Amino acid sequence: MKTRDKILLCSLELFNERGERNVTTNHIAAHLAISPGNLYYHFRNKSDIIYEIFLEYEKLVDFYLDIPEDRAMTLDDMTFYLESVFDGLWSYRFFHRDLEYLLDGDQRLRQDYREFTNRCLASISCIFEKLAEAGIIEPQEDDLRSAMSLNVWLVITNWMAFLKTAHAAEESACLTLTELKQGIYQVLTLEIPYLTPAYRDQVMALREKYRPSLPETSLAGKNAASGK
Amino acid sequence: MKTRDKILLCSLELFNERGERNVTTNHIAAHLAISPGNLYYHFRNKSDIIYEIFLEYEKLVDFYLDIPEDRAMTLDDMTFYLESVFDGLWSYRFFHRDLEYLLDGDQRLRQDYREFTNRCLASISCIFEKLAEAGIIEPQEDDLRSAMSLNVWLVITNWMAFLKTAHAAEESACLTLTELKQGIYQVLTLEIPYLTPAYRDQVMALREKYRPSLPETSLAGKNAASGK
Repeated sequence: MKTRDKILLCSLELFNERGERNVTTNHIAAHLAISPGNLYYHFRNKSDIIYEIFLEYEKLVDFYLDIPEDRAMTLDDMTFYLESVFDGLWSYRFFHRDLEYLLDGDQRLRQDYREFTNRCLASISCIFEKLAEAGIIEPQEDDLRSAMSLNVWLVITNWMAFLKTAHAAEESACLTLTELKQGIYQVLTLEIPYLTPAYRDQVMALREKYRPSLPETSLAGKNAASGK
Repeated sequence: MKTRDKILLCSLELFNERGERNVTTNHIAAHLAISPGNLYYHFRNKSDIIYEIFLEYEKLVDFYLDIPEDRAMTLDDMTFYLESVFDGLWSYRFFHRDLEYLLDGDQRLRQDYREFTNRCLASISCIFEKLAEAGIIEPQEDDLRSAMSLNVWLVITNWMAFLKTAHAAEESACLTLTELKQGIYQVLTLEIPYLTPAYRDQVMALREKYRPSLPETSLAGKNAASGK
């Protein structure tokens, strides 16, 4: 592996483990047992490393949100999109944690991230459209589909913060990929009222697989505990 | 006003304006034209200030989410809850921005915030229950109501970050209370499929008042622009 790629990989690992804020370029160099000078030969500063990592994240998401135009969408496709989104969030989890500060510090990243969000929103909307064409959900008007897509995005991108702030009793370190993917339960909750009778049972069974393993008090409602 | 209250008020203003991370106790003292020693007489450190501010926020939210038991819920009540939630987010906006770091740095705050979240989720669920009793939305099973309440919470607490990261073209400073309250449009989107025919038009008209003034590309969908 080239030094440049090693730096990116190591940075991503350290950012995810410790939080971007707590990792300096010196930490990264030390971890790789290279000199800071060698690191600076490849990247001018930490912002450049973060930006390159973002480009990889973006490439990954654009790749799996490439929606087939030539055939009908299936439930397996939908499951794949959902699984992939949460895999991506997991692999680059430092990114959403510190998003606002990262964007405040880098105008180029801010601009790119905005376009990235808009592409993701367009993809989600397109997935809803194809799910309707396939008879899995009822068709919606453009306006409602846009607002729903945005809600899907808001739920997905906030799920990890919810787990870390409201769920995890102790350190945020104990978050697992399994817990993260339980966000799929919340995303599918958004679809429930729009499911067609033909697919309702299948989607509800799929959703059940991701039911969050939250402590009883974490899911709200005076009577919620009785339903568990 | 007592010095202690002045410190809290000034800290809140500075945190909201500049971000908690960029404000030290020395900044706060300088801003109030008091000595750091005077500040330390009232608060041991910045964490103590943040914790006191959180307690005020919590008190505010608990106050307006005190749901009347003795009468039916009205649409005006629902509007009041939504407006109040976003007013609270606005007044204490630094808090959600830096939530994870704030909680990582203060075990007491972490514990309290978790309980606060659970109380909010229970209140949202209770509001849904009362809306159903009042015939505004269809009744839902406990399980679905819990998951919906959590989605409402995820949308509300992520709306500001969305505006700041994906919408605002330039500095995050330009966020307004009006834009923030447009999050109500997204929250009401979650209710649409559950509205009863008797109330549907009224709620849709209410929702329309909060329609986000996002640039066309910000709301997703290939055809979304045509709907505007």
